[in-house]
Amino acid sequence: MRNVQGDFTLTPVGHVSSELKDRAEAPKQGTEGAPDAWLVFEPSCSAALEGLRAGDRVIVLTWLHLAPRDVLRTRPRDDPANPETGVFATRSPARPNPIGLHPVEILQVVGRRLRVRGLEALDGTPVLDVKPVIGDVPGL
Amino acid sequence: MRNVQGDFTLTPVGHVSSELKDRAEAPKQGTEGAPDAWLVFEPSCSAALEGLRAGDRVIVLTWLHLAPRDVLRTRPRDDPANPETGVFATRSPARPNPIGLHPVEILQVVGRRLRVRGLEALDGTPVLDVKPVIGDVPGL
Repeated sequence: MRNVQGDFTLTPVGHVSSELKDRAEAPKQGTEGAPDAWLVFEPSCSAALEGLRAGDRVIVLTWLHLAPRDVLRTRPRDDPANPETGVFATRSPARPNPIGLHPVEILQVVGRRLRVRGLEALDGTPVLDVKPVIGDVPGL
Repeated sequence: MRNVQGDFTLTPVGHVSSELKDRAEAPKQGTEGAPDAWLVFEPSCSAALEGLRAGDRVIVLTWLHLAPRDVLRTRPRDDPANPETGVFATRSPARPNPIGLHPVEILQVVGRRLRVRGLEALDGTPVLDVKPVIGDVPGL
């Protein structure tokens, strides 16, 4: 997957602290029974959090660090009844750049920690970014 | 912005081909008069596109390669009347990991190229990923 444009370096800004400890128990989407979780940010990023408040709807971007990056086709939702599909037409974590998008509501802001509702990311997942939701449909 | 978790390497899967050539003319959001554009994928990623069709609503992830990464506070929409705010509470491209999220409709699929509606990313912007929109509000 080499590229003439060159590569880029991601530096995590924090990580997920969650009761979800392994992939077998993780729901596939945040709306499928995911627990509330904490986002714990690096001290160097404190200023970037200013203005975030309980009740805000945000999109959390994560790095799905356990996902394979060399998978280009998969069966959606790991269901053998589904036909093999290109990963760009699925939400599989397996993809060349495994960035997770998680729409959540902020429940609580405590220093450099945000409590969020319904996050399906595993404990220890690196956090890359937080963005406010814009508008209504499809927001993001 | 060093991190105990270590860094990760992003490898672009393609790039934007657009009539938008410089930042001064680029709208801040795709809904603000952005032109239709092509996404041009690397040959190595062809299989990942299988299953995408005209009419699909997807989220394109880009690397906003011209954005500064050391800005933690900004004035939303570059308006001096707005108070300084942490970048995680804004959609400014300036942020530690400048990943752009662009909800678009696919207009046409031609080999390794996707024509999409209303993309505010500049010509040459690296593309990281494409994900289908899930559900209704806020989709993504």
